[in-house]
Amino acid sequence: MDTKIMLPESEMPKHWYNALPDLPTPLAPPLDPATGKPVSPEQLAPIFPMGIIAQEMSPERMIEIPEPVLDIYRLYRPTPLVRARRLEKALGVKCKIYYKDESRSPAGSHKPNTAIPQAYYNKLEGVKRLATETGAGQWGTALSFASKMFGLECTVYMVKVSYNQKPYRRILIQSYGSQIYASPSEMTQVGRSVLASDPDCQGSLGLAISEAVEDAATHEDTKYALGSVLNHVVLHQTIVGQEVKSQLAIAGDKPDYLVGCVGGGSNFGGLVLPFLPEKLAGEKITFVAAEPKACPTLTRGQYRYDYGDVARLTPLLKMHTLGHGYMPAPIHAGGLRYHGDAPLVCNLMAEGLIDARAYYQNDCFEAALLFQATEGFLPAPETSHAIKAAIEVAKQAEAGQNVVFLYSGHGLLDLASYDAYLHGNLTDFEHSQEEIDEALKTCPTIEG
Amino acid sequence: MDTKIMLPESEMPKHWYNALPDLPTPLAPPLDPATGKPVSPEQLAPIFPMGIIAQEMSPERMIEIPEPVLDIYRLYRPTPLVRARRLEKALGVKCKIYYKDESRSPAGSHKPNTAIPQAYYNKLEGVKRLATETGAGQWGTALSFASKMFGLECTVYMVKVSYNQKPYRRILIQSYGSQIYASPSEMTQVGRSVLASDPDCQGSLGLAISEAVEDAATHEDTKYALGSVLNHVVLHQTIVGQEVKSQLAIAGDKPDYLVGCVGGGSNFGGLVLPFLPEKLAGEKITFVAAEPKACPTLTRGQYRYDYGDVARLTPLLKMHTLGHGYMPAPIHAGGLRYHGDAPLVCNLMAEGLIDARAYYQNDCFEAALLFQATEGFLPAPETSHAIKAAIEVAKQAEAGQNVVFLYSGHGLLDLASYDAYLHGNLTDFEHSQEEIDEALKTCPTIEG
Repeated sequence: MDTKIMLPESEMPKHWYNALPDLPTPLAPPLDPATGKPVSPEQLAPIFPMGIIAQEMSPERMIEIPEPVLDIYRLYRPTPLVRARRLEKALGVKCKIYYKDESRSPAGSHKPNTAIPQAYYNKLEGVKRLATETGAGQWGTALSFASKMFGLECTVYMVKVSYNQKPYRRILIQSYGSQIYASPSEMTQVGRSVLASDPDCQGSLGLAISEAVEDAATHEDTKYALGSVLNHVVLHQTIVGQEVKSQLAIAGDKPDYLVGCVGGGSNFGGLVLPFLPEKLAGEKITFVAAEPKACPTLTRGQYRYDYGDVARLTPLLKMHTLGHGYMPAPIHAGGLRYHGDAPLVCNLMAEGLIDARAYYQNDCFEAALLFQATEGFLPAPETSHAIKAAIEVAKQAEAGQNVVFLYSGHGLLDLASYDAYLHGNLTDFEHSQEEIDEALKTCPTIEG
Repeated sequence: MDTKIMLPESEMPKHWYNALPDLPTPLAPPLDPATGKPVSPEQLAPIFPMGIIAQEMSPERMIEIPEPVLDIYRLYRPTPLVRARRLEKALGVKCKIYYKDESRSPAGSHKPNTAIPQAYYNKLEGVKRLATETGAGQWGTALSFASKMFGLECTVYMVKVSYNQKPYRRILIQSYGSQIYASPSEMTQVGRSVLASDPDCQGSLGLAISEAVEDAATHEDTKYALGSVLNHVVLHQTIVGQEVKSQLAIAGDKPDYLVGCVGGGSNFGGLVLPFLPEKLAGEKITFVAAEPKACPTLTRGQYRYDYGDVARLTPLLKMHTLGHGYMPAPIHAGGLRYHGDAPLVCNLMAEGLIDARAYYQNDCFEAALLFQATEGFLPAPETSHAIKAAIEVAKQAEAGQNVVFLYSGHGLLDLASYDAYLHGNLTDFEHSQEEIDEALKTCPTIEG
């Protein structure tokens, strides 16, 4: 059997899989914090196009992927499913290990899978410009790429500390023609007011979200785009899991373990949700979610309504949260530093359908370098959490079993993190229960 | 027809194609500068393993690729041949444009195609450590990866100015477990002597070669590895052109133009040489070599014997040279800053079988950003020269013709160069005839 299982372009999925109608319990709706009632589509219209809002709430099981989106997907999809034989051998495991390589996109991660349709639906409705935030830079890169493909302008608010520490990410975003501002910026009311009181403010993802949302809400021709958490984002990522299913079928295998890292939950959801019907029908498939101990939403958070952002601009979402006031420690997997998770993923977690595990970053970097030493490629720090979990699972798996993990992105723009690890300069973080209890107090009291 | 033409792993070439027996005129042999006579295999034995020396001089047309090398190739090969439809459309050309994507390797370029077999043959002969030089860092990364795959140690001498300007390249090399030293270093006699007279010396590729060769020559368990120019390097790269041939056959097409950038000539040679028999048999295939105007070896150099390195440690090679004393201007395509070219490529050039073209770097960066704006991916500065030439050729090509260019590497570790371009800070360089004549005086007077 081949090392890389390639799916022919003709067999690339033509639909996204919408898990909403298949959930064992209905998804708790997003609530308007002012009224405590479900948010209406009209309330979202100032910041999202109707095509996206419809997908956020769709009852349809299969949603057709528009041809112009497929056209851009074909620049890098289908992505390979790779049998990690050299990793298996180094570990001495009895099972097979596969990884689904989403690092092959122009942005180097899975993020374009949703950036492309988001740009498309905005273009379709006459939007001229997209505004978004980015922390580590993966999402800003992906939306910049997608905007360029559809001839949209793109404005990225990048958390100031990352903007200064990661010049390569900034330049890559600019090379796609996007405007990029260090957040807090002078471009928005919220940015100016923060700078007025704290000129040296280094920014936060929550603040950058606030700037991007304000930009979209105050400009007629501009909408906002989000890279994780929401249903439509997870929906778009289901192309990943569907491809995995077809590729395993080519190999004559079925998955026993599906492993992904969880930040906002979109890459993990995109991998596992297409296998939900089989799991609910009784097939023994374990969904393994890997998260950092420094931001242990699934393993230590509470399942309740909370704001999606620090500035409380978003609707309330029911999710495993550490409280929107939670300040995750500065681990290098920037994409995993989010206080909540996608409601779709949390719904499964609450049903006992997910095996969530939390890891220290030094253990994850060690796993990443073992992967690199055997399979050759350098993973992103976020991806290293999935690798760590996959290795742990594989060591306990039996002969004949198959472990599949999602290789969500490469680490070529994260080399400063590896430098710190190689020099022994990385700290492992874990909050005390008292600290987490304190952060949880920032959750609103509305109960869903 | 698919956007990406994938070759099944089962059809990956099992042999490298050796053009030596097919050349219309025999290749001029490397000469010993002391005697003016052809270099014997024994003279090369202190720095190269016999398996490599045999390939350097082999009369066999097809050389079998060892199974352990194929195993590592399969981590990233076969690479896709991509139909650049969006680029075609943006240009409004009538022909088809394809690119062969060698950026997909763990090192991000075509360099592992030769690093892997070089590491393998050294391992086979009991070598414990490889020493090499690197300028921009592509080759040092590739040999570090390949050494790791075969359990060899690797020492990289990196030109000091690059070592300091490109920390990400240094870290990537270190992440594979290699030792890396800024050259000139304290590790070698030549390094120490340079530092003694000039403590602030920023190094040069020629000096780094000298350090690596000295390291290999003075340590029993250590050999040297070179990333371009020599016959065996070009030989290993012919897997690229062979794959292109099979992939075009799948598409039902034949190439009218094969386009590659030329630094030392190995990626270009690897692309075009497998098509040499067809070309010599009368098929109309144009081999287009793209080089920088700042280092115009094929377009303005002389075809004569010269040293391969500045320090005159290598045998004399017959090639298109600007003189080994030529100091190329500091263009951003570091991999194209070499005073000579592979003798195999120069042999074809001298026979009139190559259409060589030289470009300014600003024009190449402009072409690179057009490629990125249409096809999504950011090319290496070296690769941008091939893109510039491919666009030029495509604009003049007719309907029904096919232009194939080699996408030799990605630009994710060259973002500082793009930043300079985007800010209008790149200078275009071209030497006067007087300056080139002066550099040519450094060539030895031996005539081949």
